[in-house]
Order: sequence, then C-alpha cells, then structure tokens
Amino acid sequence: MSAIAGTPKKNMMLFSGRAHPELAEHVAKELDVTVTPQSAYSFANGEIFCRFEESVRGSDAFVIQAHSAPINDAIMEQLIMVDALKRGSAKRITAVMPFWGYARQDKKHRGREPISARLVADMFKTAGADRILTVDLHTSQIQGFFDGPVDHLFALPVLSRHIKDTRPDANFAVVSPDSGRVRLAERWAETLGGTPLAFIHKTRDPRKPNEAVANRVVGDIEGRCCVVIDDMIDTGGTVAKAVDVLLKEGATEVLVAATHGVLSGPATERLANCGASEVIFTDSLPIPDEKRFDAMTVLPIAPLLAEAIHQVFEDGSVTSLFDGNA
Amino acid sequence: MSAIAGTPKKNMMLFSGRAHPELAEHVAKELDVTVTPQSAYSFANGEIFCRFEESVRGSDAFVIQAHSAPINDAIMEQLIMVDALKRGSAKRITAVMPFWGYARQDKKHRGREPISARLVADMFKTAGADRILTVDLHTSQIQGFFDGPVDHLFALPVLSRHIKDTRPDANFAVVSPDSGRVRLAERWAETLGGTPLAFIHKTRDPRKPNEAVANRVVGDIEGRCCVVIDDMIDTGGTVAKAVDVLLKEGATEVLVAATHGVLSGPATERLANCGASEVIFTDSLPIPDEKRFDAMTVLPIAPLLAEAIHQVFEDGSVTSLFDGNA
Amino acid sequence: MSAIAGTPKKNMMLFSGRAHPELAEHVAKELDVTVTPQSAYSFANGEIFCRFEESVRGSDAFVIQAHSAPINDAIMEQLIMVDALKRGSAKRITAVMPFWGYARQDKKHRGREPISARLVADMFKTAGADRILTVDLHTSQIQGFFDGPVDHLFALPVLSRHIKDTRPDANFAVVSPDSGRVRLAERWAETLGGTPLAFIHKTRDPRKPNEAVANRVVGDIEGRCCVVIDDMIDTGGTVAKAVDVLLKEGATEVLVAATHGVLSGPATERLANCGASEVIFTDSLPIPDEKRFDAMTVLPIAPLLAEAIHQVFEDGSVTSLFDGNA
Amino acid sequence: MSAIAGTPKKNMMLFSGRAHPELAEHVAKELDVTVTPQSAYSFANGEIFCRFEESVRGSDAFVIQAHSAPINDAIMEQLIMVDALKRGSAKRITAVMPFWGYARQDKKHRGREPISARLVADMFKTAGADRILTVDLHTSQIQGFFDGPVDHLFALPVLSRHIKDTRPDANFAVVSPDSGRVRLAERWAETLGGTPLAFIHKTRDPRKPNEAVANRVVGDIEGRCCVVIDDMIDTGGTVAKAVDVLLKEGATEVLVAATHGVLSGPATERLANCGASEVIFTDSLPIPDEKRFDAMTVLPIAPLLAEAIHQVFEDGSVTSLFDGNA
Amino acid sequence: MSAIAGTPKKNMMLFSGRAHPELAEHVAKELDVTVTPQSAYSFANGEIFCRFEESVRGSDAFVIQAHSAPINDAIMEQLIMVDALKRGSAKRITAVMPFWGYARQDKKHRGREPISARLVADMFKTAGADRILTVDLHTSQIQGFFDGPVDHLFALPVLSRHIKDTRPDANFAVVSPDSGRVRLAERWAETLGGTPLAFIHKTRDPRKPNEAVANRVVGDIEGRCCVVIDDMIDTGGTVAKAVDVLLKEGATEVLVAATHGVLSGPATERLANCGASEVIFTDSLPIPDEKRFDAMTVLPIAPLLAEAIHQVFEDGSVTSLFDGNA
Amino acid sequence: MSAIAGTPKKNMMLFSGRAHPELAEHVAKELDVTVTPQSAYSFANGEIFCRFEESVRGSDAFVIQAHSAPINDAIMEQLIMVDALKRGSAKRITAVMPFWGYARQDKKHRGREPISARLVADMFKTAGADRILTVDLHTSQIQGFFDGPVDHLFALPVLSRHIKDTRPDANFAVVSPDSGRVRLAERWAETLGGTPLAFIHKTRDPRKPNEAVANRVVGDIEGRCCVVIDDMIDTGGTVAKAVDVLLKEGATEVLVAATHGVLSGPATERLANCGASEVIFTDSLPIPDEKRFDAMTVLPIAPLLAEAIHQVFEDGSVTSLFDGNA
Repeated sequence: MSAIAGTPKKNMMLFSGRAHPELAEHVAKELDVTVTPQSAYSFANGEIFCRFEESVRGSDAFVIQAHSAPINDAIMEQLIMVDALKRGSAKRITAVMPFWGYARQDKKHRGREPISARLVADMFKTAGADRILTVDLHTSQIQGFFDGPVDHLFALPVLSRHIKDTRPDANFAVVSPDSGRVRLAERWAETLGGTPLAFIHKTRDPRKPNEAVANRVVGDIEGRCCVVIDDMIDTGGTVAKAVDVLLKEGATEVLVAATHGVLSGPATERLANCGASEVIFTDSLPIPDEKRFDAMTVLPIAPLLAEAIHQVFEDGSVTSLFDGNA
Repeated sequence: MSAIAGTPKKNMMLFSGRAHPELAEHVAKELDVTVTPQSAYSFANGEIFCRFEESVRGSDAFVIQAHSAPINDAIMEQLIMVDALKRGSAKRITAVMPFWGYARQDKKHRGREPISARLVADMFKTAGADRILTVDLHTSQIQGFFDGPVDHLFALPVLSRHIKDTRPDANFAVVSPDSGRVRLAERWAETLGGTPLAFIHKTRDPRKPNEAVANRVVGDIEGRCCVVIDDMIDTGGTVAKAVDVLLKEGATEVLVAATHGVLSGPATERLANCGASEVIFTDSLPIPDEKRFDAMTVLPIAPLLAEAIHQVFEDGSVTSLFDGNA
Repeated sequence: MSAIAGTPKKNMMLFSGRAHPELAEHVAKELDVTVTPQSAYSFANGEIFCRFEESVRGSDAFVIQAHSAPINDAIMEQLIMVDALKRGSAKRITAVMPFWGYARQDKKHRGREPISARLVADMFKTAGADRILTVDLHTSQIQGFFDGPVDHLFALPVLSRHIKDTRPDANFAVVSPDSGRVRLAERWAETLGGTPLAFIHKTRDPRKPNEAVANRVVGDIEGRCCVVIDDMIDTGGTVAKAVDVLLKEGATEVLVAATHGVLSGPATERLANCGASEVIFTDSLPIPDEKRFDAMTVLPIAPLLAEAIHQVFEDGSVTSLFDGNA
Repeated sequence: MSAIAGTPKKNMMLFSGRAHPELAEHVAKELDVTVTPQSAYSFANGEIFCRFEESVRGSDAFVIQAHSAPINDAIMEQLIMVDALKRGSAKRITAVMPFWGYARQDKKHRGREPISARLVADMFKTAGADRILTVDLHTSQIQGFFDGPVDHLFALPVLSRHIKDTRPDANFAVVSPDSGRVRLAERWAETLGGTPLAFIHKTRDPRKPNEAVANRVVGDIEGRCCVVIDDMIDTGGTVAKAVDVLLKEGATEVLVAATHGVLSGPATERLANCGASEVIFTDSLPIPDEKRFDAMTVLPIAPLLAEAIHQVFEDGSVTSLFDGNA
Repeated sequence: MSAIAGTPKKNMMLFSGRAHPELAEHVAKELDVTVTPQSAYSFANGEIFCRFEESVRGSDAFVIQAHSAPINDAIMEQLIMVDALKRGSAKRITAVMPFWGYARQDKKHRGREPISARLVADMFKTAGADRILTVDLHTSQIQGFFDGPVDHLFALPVLSRHIKDTRPDANFAVVSPDSGRVRLAERWAETLGGTPLAFIHKTRDPRKPNEAVANRVVGDIEGRCCVVIDDMIDTGGTVAKAVDVLLKEGATEVLVAATHGVLSGPATERLANCGASEVIFTDSLPIPDEKRFDAMTVLPIAPLLAEAIHQVFEDGSVTSLFDGNA
Repeated sequence: MSAIAGTPKKNMMLFSGRAHPELAEHVAKELDVTVTPQSAYSFANGEIFCRFEESVRGSDAFVIQAHSAPINDAIMEQLIMVDALKRGSAKRITAVMPFWGYARQDKKHRGREPISARLVADMFKTAGADRILTVDLHTSQIQGFFDGPVDHLFALPVLSRHIKDTRPDANFAVVSPDSGRVRLAERWAETLGGTPLAFIHKTRDPRKPNEAVANRVVGDIEGRCCVVIDDMIDTGGTVAKAVDVLLKEGATEVLVAATHGVLSGPATERLANCGASEVIFTDSLPIPDEKRFDAMTVLPIAPLLAEAIHQVFEDGSVTSLFDGNA
C-alpha cells in the first residue's frame, strides 16, 4: 500500500480588511480567537497590497470587510485578500460582508444600466470566494447572484429586541418609508406583535411631471409610536421626510431603525433634526463619532456574525439564529 | 493573400416549443415570417426529442416557449431546442420566455431551500442561450440571475391602455393584493395618472399564531374603482380575497389586471365569482377556453414580443418600447 | 497563533426525490441510515419545491432519484434538490441516477439534433453535483459527458446470477435484439460461460425503402435457451419481435433480461404475450403493479447501490463490486 | 450619433499543422484558396512554436491537422495554433481533425482510467476552438464530448462508391471484425443494397480464461465477397484474423475498408499478407509510401472536407453531404 | 424558407470613464467620432453608477479608462461600464487601459501574496470584456493573464523619436534604473542605434543586511548623454537616485523617459530636482498641471491608441504599428 | 438524525509519469512512501494510456513528471494521469512539474504568436489539477497563469551552497548571460555575499542589421571567479559565448550554474569545451550519462521537492523552505 495516512485537522482563521477593523476584533473576541496578522497598505496611487504573516494553508478562512466609503477600495481590498488566500492554499474561503456593496444596483432600472450587485458577486467568485456571509440584503434575491452558499443573516431580532425592551408598553405602528419596503415592514409588524402597517407614498402631480412631489401616509398611524424601518440609510432624505409627515399626521413618537448606517453627506444632520426620538443602527458599517448624535443608538452586530461563523465552521445550522427565517 | 472573402448575411429564424404554438404563430405573423418547421415529440416516458427541418447555421435564432403547465416539460423542451441550435451552429440564440418559470423561487425564504429561478437561468446559459427575452418578471432582480443580456419587457402599457380606454372617466385606486407588490402598484398609479394607492395587509393574531388571518385594507379606496394588480395569478386565492375585502370596504367596482395567467386549480372559479367586474390578462401563457369566463379579457402579447424581437435583430433600442423603463 | 483548531467529521446523508421513494428507502435500509426528511411538493402548474428538514452543512450528500415518467419532473426535482444542497453548504453532492434520463439521445443521429444526454450531464454540473452514480448506461461513453467522477455500476452480475441459479443446466445462447447491443451480448456470453452469440438483423428491401422490414437471426441459436439482453426496454417492440423470430427459428426457450424497465405504452402487453418464458428487470425504475405480469421477475438494485455508496463514502474501491469492470 | 458604421466582411483562412501538409494543400486546392503561410518549428526538446505570417484578425479560421504519430506532437501543435489564433483575434476557429486522437479511450473500460477523448475535446475548448470538424468518429457519442458544434462527416459514401464501382456484380456480405462494429456494418449493408451481415465473435474457453481465443464467424458469408469494415485500422491484427477466418469459412473474396489508416507497427505486413484482395483507406491520416503495398487503395478525403468547410463558411447545410446522416 | 435576411452592420462606439476624459476625447478626435454620452456619477459612499444615453446594441465598443489614482474607483468604473455594455447587448467589448492597474503585483514576491494583475484580468473577463488594449505592460507576461486577445502597444517609438529629434547629435547611453529593466534598456539601445548600456546595481552590505544601500553603475557611461528608461515612474525615488549617481559618475547629461507617469507623492519634487535635463512621459495617465514642471515633456498617446482601435475595428494588423514588435 | 458519521482520513499518494521515474523514486524515498503502481504504456501511434493499480479515492495525489524531451508526450501523459485521478475521485490533485514546459513562450514576442505557457496552465486546470508545484520558473509571472495555488520553489540555495562549500575563498562575480536575467543575477549576488554583478550585452552594428553580433561584458569582472547563472540551459550557445568572453576579459575562472538542464543538441559539447571549470545543474530534468562530462555536477532536487510535498500535505508553510522567498 503506497499511501501515507494522516488525520486531517481543521483550522478557523479570521482575516480583517482595513475598512472596519473594530468589527473584526469584536467578532474575534466573541469567538475567542485573534485576527490573523497581515501587512496591508495602499500605494500612493491607491493600489492595495496585502500579505499574511502566518501560513494559511488548509485553513477555513473568514475574511471580514465592511463595504464602507470609499467603497471601491474596501471591495478591492477584500478581493485581493481572497486572491491571496486562494493562492496560499486556504481550504475554504468565506467572504464576510455584513453590508453587500452596490446592493441597490440589483437590476436594470432602465435600459443600458449595469447590474453591479451581480458583478460584485461574480468578482468574489472569480477571486476565489467559496461562500458569502452577509446581513440584511437590500433585496433577498441578491443571494441568488452568487453561485454558491450565501448565509443571509437578519438583524431584525437585534433591532426589535432593543425597541421592545426600551418601550415595553408602546402602541406601535410600523412604517415603510416608501413603497419598496412594505414587505419588510410586514415582517417587523409580525415581530412586534401584529401591529398596524403603513407606508409613505410619493405622488407626482400628473400635470407637472417634473415638479413637486407630495408624501402621503397610506395606513393608519394616528396616536401611535411609529417605527420607520429600512435596510440601510444613506443620505437620510427619504427617512427624514417620512418622520416629518408621520409627526404631522398625528404620530405620538417616531423611531427609526435600520441595519446599515451608510450615512453619507447630510445624513447625520437630517436624522438628528428630523424629529425622531431615537435612530437605531447596527455597526455593520463603521459609524465614526462625528456622524453620531445624541438620539442615535448603535447596536453591535458582532455577536450575530460570530455565532454564524461558529456554526458555519462547525457545520451547524445557521437557520436557528434567525427565528427560522434564514 | 490567402483568405476567401465574402459578405456576411444575417438571418432571423423563429422557433416554437409546443407549449403555446399560437403565441409563436402570432409573433411570426407580426414579423411577417414563418416559424421554422421542426419534428418534436415526446416519448412515452416523457423524454422530448426535436429536430429542425431546415439548416440553422449562422442564424439569429429566437426560441419561443411558454413556461406553462406541465412546466418542467416546457422548460426542458426549450433547453433541448437551444442545445440543438448550439450544436447546429446557430450564430446567436435568444430564449424567449414571456413568463420565466420558477420566478417565485427567487430567494431562500428559509434555510436549505433552492433558488430555482437562478437555476433556470444557469440551465439556459449551459444549454447555449446567449440572451433571454422575457416579460414582467416576478422581481426585476431575476434579470441579474442570467449572465448575459436580458431584455425585460413590461406589459403594463398594454394592460393600462385597455383599462383607460374602456373606463375613461373612472376614479381609480390601485391596489396591491399583498405587501410585496406595492412598488408595482405605485408604477401603475403613476401610469393611470397619480391615483391613490392601497394594499391588503394580512395580519395574524399574535396570540394564535397558527390560526386565522385577517385581511385589512391599508389605504383609502372608498368610492373608487379599484384596480388590483399583480404580475401573475396562480390559484387566485389572494386576489379573490382582495377583491372581496375591497368591495366590503366600499370600492364601487373592482378590476383585476395581471400579465401572466397561470390559473391553476380553482383559479377560474375563484376569479369568476369573486365580484370583480373584469379580470384582464395577456396571453403570455396559454389560457384555454375552459379556463375562460365572461368577465375575463385576454390581450395579445405578441405585438410587444414581435416589436422587441425586431429591434433585437436590427440592433435597435428596446428601451423605447416601454416608456423608458426597460 | 490565530487559528481555532478542530477535528473534522464526515456525515453521509441520503436524500430521495419523489419518483421512486421505495428505492431510496431500500438503499437506506441496506446502509442502516434513514432518508433525510424533507418537504417537497409540486405547485399546480408543475413547479417543484423542496426544503430539507435538517441541516445539511458539511454533509456527504447522496441524492437518489429515478428518472422515470414523467421524466422531466424527475430530473428537475433532482436538480432542484442538488441546488438546495449546494446553497445549504453540503460538502460533496453525488447525484444517484440508476437510469440516466435521455441516455438514448447520446449523439446527433442526423444534423440539427440535440445531444440531450450531455445536456443532462451539464445541468447536474451546473446545479452543483460533484459526482454521479449510475447503473448500466445506454452507452459507456456517456460517462465522459460529465466533467467529474462517474461511478458506473453494472447490473449484469445481478441479472446473470438469477438466470444461472434458476436454470443451472440450460444450454444458453445470448442474443442482442439489434445490431447495437452485440458488444453487451458478448459480455453476457462470457459471464454465462462462453455461450454462442447471435443478433437480430433488421433488413429493408432496397427496392421498397419505406416499406416492410424483415428480422433475420444472425448466428446459430437452434435448440438453445436464448437470453435476449438489453440495457433498457421501453415500448418492448424490438424485443418482442426478437423473441418471436427466435422461437420461430428453433429456440427451445427465450428469456429476456434488461436492467431498466422503462415499460412505456404497450410494453407490458407485448412482453407478456411475446412468448418469453421469463422477463427479468431490476427495480432501477419503479415498476408499478399494473405493469407487472406473471412471467416478470424484478430483482432489487438497492444492494448494489448501497454497497457503492458505502464505498464512495469510505473512499474504498468501487471497482471490486463489478467483477473488475467498473 | 456617435458610432462609426462600416460593413463587415468575412474571410475564410486555412491553416495547416505539420503532420499532414499534403492534406491541407489538397483541401486548399479544392477550395481555390492558399494555406496561410506560417513559421512553425520544434525546439530540440520538442517544444513547438508557431507564428502566422499574415494578420488573422476577424478571420473564419480552419486549422487542419492530422492526429497521426507522433500524435501528442500533432495535437499539441494544433492546440498551440488555436491559441495563437484566439490571441490574434480570429473571429471563429474550427479545429479540423479528420481523425480524432485518443478516440478509442472514450470511456473507462475499468476503474481508475482516464477518458482521454473527452480530455482532448476539453483541451481544444480551452485553447479557444469554437467548433470541431471530424470524420467517422470511433463512436458517435464523442461528438457530445465537445461543448459546441461538431460537424461529423461520414466517409462511407466515398469508400462504398469505390467498391460498388469496381465490383458492380459482386455478391456482397458486410462483416464487422468484432462485436463492437456491428451497427456500422449494418449501415454499410444498407448502403450496399441490403446485403447479409456477419461479425467475428472472439470466444474464450471458459475453463482456461487466460488462454487461447477462437474466432468464430457469426452470420452466413459462404460464397460471398466479404467487406470487412472498420472506422480505423491500427496494428491490423483483428482485421487480418477476420480475413483469415472468412476465407476459411468459404468467402470467395475479402475486401477491407476503413476510413482511418493508423497503420502502426506490423500493420502493413499483416494486411499485405492476410489474403484480402484489396484494402481501402482514405488519406485522413498520412500513409507514407513505405506503408503502402500493391493491394492498398487510398482514396482522397479532401473533397469531402473542402465541401464541408465551404458549407460551414457559407452557413449552408452540411447534412446534405452525408446522405442525410450527419 | 422561414428566415428573414438582412445585411449586418458594424458600429464602432467609444466610451470613456471619468478618470481621464481628455484622453478619450483626443482619441475620438483622431478617429473622427464622438464619445458616446453617458450618465455617470458616484454616490456619497463611493458607489459608481453609469448609464449610456444611446443604444449600444450590436456595437463594437471600446471603453477607455486610465487606471489612475484613485485607482480602485477607476477600475471599478470601467468594470461597471463593461457590465452595462454586456447587458445592453454590445457585440464586442474592448477594455482600453493604457496603463494596466496593479501591473506591479504580477507575481508572488514571497508566500501568501496575491497576484493582483491576474485578478484584474479575470475581473474584466468576468464583467464581459472580450479583449484588452494596453500600452507598455510592466512585464509582457501579463498579456497571458487575460483569457483572450490582448493588443499590447509600445510607446518606445513615440518617446525615442522625440529624443532623437531634439538631440540629433548626442552620444547616448541607455540606463536601466535597476536590475529588472535591463531587457527594456536593450530594446531602447537598439532603437537609438546600438548605444552602450548600463544599469544601477543596488548593493547591500552583507554584514548589515537591513541598512544602507549603495548604488553602483554597472556599465560605462562616462561622457555620455544618459537616457534613464522605465515603463512607469511612481514616487520617483529610484530614478532620482539613478540620475544622481550617473551625474556623479561622469554623465554629461541625463534624460528620463517613461511611458506611464504615475507620479505619486514626492515624485514631482524629486524629478524636478534630481538633475535630469528633461523628463519625458506620455499622457497614458493624466498628469495634472500641479504635477508638471519646466523640464517635463508630455507626449500624446492618443494617436497610437486611435490607430490601434482603428485597426482592431477594421480587422487590420496591429503589429505593423510597433516596428514589428507587437 | 439521519446522517452516518465517520472520521475522515487523509492519504498522500505519489504518482510518477514515465519521463523521469528516478526522480519520483528519489522523492518517494525521502518521504518514506512508495510510488503508486500503475499500468502506463504508449500505443504505436503515440497515444498514451494509464491505469492505477490501487484505489485513489479520497487521496491527496501528487503527480510527478519531468517535462523533458519528447516534451509533448511528457505533458500529455501527466494530463492523462490527472484526468484519471479526477475521474477516480482523488480529493486533491497536485501536478508536480519541476520544469514547467513551454515556459519560454510566456508572452507574444511579436503579433500572432501563442502564449503556450498559459495554455499549459489552462490544460492542467481543465484536466483537473487543483495545484501546481514547480521549481525556478523562467519568469515568476507564470505563477499567475494558473488559476489556483502554485508553489514555486527556488533551487538557488541548493546551487549556491555547493559553490560556496567548494570554493570558500573565491572572489566571486555573478554574471547574467544576457540582459534578461540580471534580476536573477542580483539575487545570486546577494546570496553569495554582495558580490559584483555583470551581464553580457549583445550588440548589433546598426548599419548592418542582419549581420554580426558582438558580445560585450557590462560590469567589472576582471580577476574574479565568475558565476554565470541561468534558470535553464537548452542548446548552451549563449552561455558558452558568455564564458568565452568572460575569460577573454580577464576572469580568473568561470563557473556555470542553472537549475534545469534541458541540454538539447550541441549543448554538452559546447559546455564541455567552453572553458568553464564547472557546470552545475539539478536533476529537475533527467540528464542521461551520454550528456554528462567531467566538469558537470548534478545536484539532487528530490530533497527540496519532498520537503515541499510534505509541507503541502501537512498544511505547513512552504515559505520557510526558500529563505523567505517563495
């Protein structure tokens, strides 16, 4: 018999891009492991280089990166890390991207447009990623953009638990800030215990097509504590207007809850001044101090990620993490 | 110089599966062409065979098939035709599937589920399809499931024109039958001239989770002619309940409009008796006589398909066909 | 050192499509395992859905499905199960298809035809199958259609053992029912101990090309117990005629043996009345009671499949199972 | 409008490997074109280099190479030429391989074997071939090994016409030299006008499994002019024994006809001395003078190839070339 | 006959990313065409969006983008444009990247590193690019990273012509600034007429491995006009030191010539003050005014690109453009 | 719970092609394992067949083959072995090719050339190789041609240790035989302790472009023991001329050191008579006795390969093997 026998081992290794190292550190702490040390730097023209300080052969590698601004650098860095792991003989590579960059460009809205969310999926496949782990996709269909397993986690339990714990007696209504999030609002409404539902309908005056838009509340929210929900908040315009109209229409209080705090440009100012009594995010994206304000609450996403990574490594079920909805 | 020069020609050829030959014939008539004759039959165990009666070398081939029941036979037949075209040296192959089979399974609703709509896309790519031409996808993201051009047509202009023409003075409201079609309803509302919007909210009593569900109208529809819209109607249950509750809540009249008439099982009976004054489909799927009833209107989709095929063949813009929304 | 170490486990899991659940149950029993429970159902328009009731992460998954009528449903269901396993992070996926659907369309007989057996192979690759396990392919070349390992089992030992056991003293001749199975007949002849060989030659009168066909026995079968062999019997016409001509030419008895009982349309009637004293199949395809008759013997294929699955799981040799012929 | 318009041209260019340049020259002459000049040479260690002397951009390229001994050099040279065409921006690349190398290794005869005929197909795909043009595959299933169009030509009309022309009054029987070519013999028998059929059955004495083998004629050939047919003849052993036994069993004359004259080792001697009155090949493979003998006839294959190339270039039907059997 | 015939057209369309629009405009002017108008903008978090204002169906599309800082944005924008062209049914897509980003990371210098230049090639393939057109790759092997045609242009004739024209009587020596560009220097030396050659050798004191490095000129440059050449200059450190040591060792004058002016950080200051009498670049990358200085000459690369695009479109030879060296 | 659990094993198996079996045996001995027995033979027309004598299921397979003359046979044999391993269910397949065939054709030197080194990489990927293990690539960029891990070993320590051990007091200079190996010479110079550097510059008289070439030493080598280095020596012409000119220019002694002894045609004679006092190779390629001469030293490469294979199998770091340079 000509073979040498051995017993295989399996090694989980965590890797972190430079976009949000605190998140990776937090995940590592939850898992009682350390982030694998690496050299990573950017050349003056923006080219990114990385090199791992330890052998990655045979590892079950999890590469954590926030797709935060400047987002193309973040994505490219994660791709380069995946490439280096592939060429360094890692056994399995999971790209952990709590926020999936370019998720909003998930279809051609009109002709001659890209579908960049699919392009991102394909680029990770090309670089060598075997799996993707993500949180609260803009649309769940994006899972299908990747040719392989996608573990799609929901932050809703994290966010809703906070709201229920802090306002045990509130009389809630859940509000979608536009017509595209009503399904998500419905899931929130169920979680909060069968509350009413509403959404904001943007109407255009048909006689003046390029002009003013009115926001109308569709649904009954008077006298209620409204929870305006979304998967992400970017510039905050839509949400701020939603809060405004809800208060005008008789809401007693308005909360805002979203998983991903993209928070570009005027977002902080708009949210701080829109009248919401609390604005709740997870730290799936880094939220620097200068973007925070008094009424903002940032909940940690690391325990959810850590638990999922643990289950993936141990071949356990991730479904149980998400109220049977993963 | 060692080459033989020549002038290339381009030939459009239409092919039709056996699921809905009338549709292909109608498209052919609009284009002033004939459907390429073929031998196609099914063996007793269900295996499908096809062979084209004319050479297909160098052709710009359009393979029209309705993904109607029995749907797996319809899909398999179209795949086999695409394979035969590929192996017969067709130059470009466009799979024309007005209704994209398995479109509803476009994500994992829970863990350990397939994403069959992506599987369908990949199977057509594998068989040799270069492009897909389809109408009113269940979710637009499905475009991104195919690695190549997808021309995504909208039947909304066809349907809405009929409604506007037959009820020029109606006071419309557009209603989504559940929380997942509100965005589509909004597009309808714009097309009909900035009408109000509503949707049906299914609520569960949180204390009796496995029991009765109440349907609540969210939005103001009293005294209006409600247009309940959807991309497809399968068993008709959701829509029939929506019509019922709308009439109870004070709608003066209820119309139903959907692109794809899947119409399984009790659909015809439910729709015929639900109280809707008119139920409007296109013939993207075959609707046999026994599934029709007096209040049903079936509008031809062939002119839209023919125009798109013509533009694709001539490298013209398809966008213009769809009010700038393709 | 930053890694978490662990010891990998391996788990064999069996899955069964709905085409022939008794076969999967039988295999499971042989392996002392249970078939993984799942939800699987068909919508009214034929769309198939499945969901596994247990986590499949890291499993060595074997998906058993008979490609029996309605065959496109059977194939599609198995593809969808493979897709769900891939997306559910199964470690390795083996599609067990005792009969490979569309195996007869393994070449272009004339121009502009598909090669559907290759298409089936590619669709399983696309869906995510790593390996295929099959029995008695129509032509062995089909193994090469799949880009990966194909374990190709032979039922000949199962069938021939039965014949030798029940007729220890017979004076056999092996007969191929047409010119395409002579090689297989030769393998049978060796197994039965160097018996004579014959085949049925269909001749056309060259002056009347579209008319009558005469069947001529080529080879000497007079006074012998003829075993007419084939890989599959579909409508039974060719075999029934072969039995008839053999008896007319002086065979003392005629047996029929084939691995796959497709048995479409008039097959049962033809076989029951053709004069064969015994017709022997395996249960690689389901043979319902109404297709059975007195002279039919159905031998179980599950022990062969179970042994092969066991060896694949344990990384043992499958070759030894098949008299050195796998 | 921002585009520059133009009229596309199409250019057929012929390329020839160094294995059988006379064949390419003959094809070129039939097509009234010249073979594109190139530099091609082998380094001392066997590495092959090629460079085309003219621009190949946009060409419809046909690369003709005989897979003759030393066959790995021939295959590698053709692959390298295809790669150079791909990188030189040829528009479409057809690998013309009248004999498909490694065609005999088209399945695993036993476990742990390669399927080299599929490997060859995949290598041509990888190198950049869009299509394959070949003649008389060892088994037709090999067509399905290539993921793209394969034009599979038949030399049977060329060979049989010669036989019929030279022996208009003969009383033929067609004989397969072993059990694996009976189907091919049947096609010959039809072409020659419904002649009888026979094959040679190799029997092993079951009591002495590793010993002597007897060749038995199955079928009636006495008093006839036997045509022993095959797709290729390599060392000639099987065929020579077939001729011998046919003459012993009463054949009046024996002819041998095969498409591909591989003719390795003792082939020439065996064929020259086996008793056949004529041995007929095409020049699909080069047959040097030292391998020829008086009773050998070599028919040109170039007209068939040229006609097929012409039809492929012009997008005409190739099927018509082969009596409706391509 | 069922086909519609037509005459195909071909349309060249130019597209420009936002990194260096002047270059695309210059190319367009040379070709007497206009750049296709598009909407392109970046969201606040860096996500890039583009949409073409005209139909791109059937076009022969050339997408020009400089991979300049911030380079990941430039690459991502070009990828997104390619994706939009693919999905918009462009017929052929050529990515024109005069400078290939990440070209320096073309191998693993040590273990566990990425090969980012290959990753870039694969990403363009994944996005849908059929071809790449580039200038003066860091190493020519990078051509082989792309699975398709790469047209690799040389700027050497442009640069050397300028030098010869402005210094007709100079006594040149060509100098590689380090040991890795000596081959390129040799090509320059031939072009300038067989001049002497030298390179700068960085030596480390073996006893103090991490310390001082001495630069030694290897080759004879005394009394000559030295041309220090490179494919790109990034921070300018190596080149500035080379100029310094050459002047110290007796060069009468030192020129610097490089194709790509990356010019990061202190580059301008270093080059302006290093003692070189002229520093020559092409505008393959944008060189803004603040990076320019008196002794810098920037030669236009657009004529070279335009000529190559013209030849590619017309299926002419590109080789002739580059002194037979493409 | 329906799964059968087990503990996976891992088995290293070594396989050897027939090009250089001594090397594989030597590696096996170092690893204390035996080469897996196989049947491998060539048919008369050159077709290669192999079959393994033991089950390879689940193995970690290393396939060792020297790409020596006749090189296409060697490559094809290794590809066929990889295919057989893939189809035999090996778990991981590493192609060990100490010399990478066709490495010199790693770019298009001019237009319309192949990039054969990439073609070789892609063919191994296609056949089923997961990884490649190689030594001293002609250019390191070739690593990037393979889509997967390449372990690139350096023989420099082996060669340089021998030189330092045998000439402890020599006053070395390192010389590149042409302008393309100066970087490699620099690495040698560092390893030998910061020695001077030189290269041979081939100059053409610009007035007689197709005529005589003069070799000039660039760098100071007088009075030194020159080590002429290269990755491979084929016909030996360039190196022999380098030795000659170095001795003429005052070198006290000249050594030649190269990893791969291709040694075609006149190589042995040239090297034996060129004046070098020692010519040193490894046995990465077989060097038969008739190619050896007195001043030739052949160092074993097997210990380096064996250590790397061991580390790959154990998931250890290979980097440490190569002075931090792998």
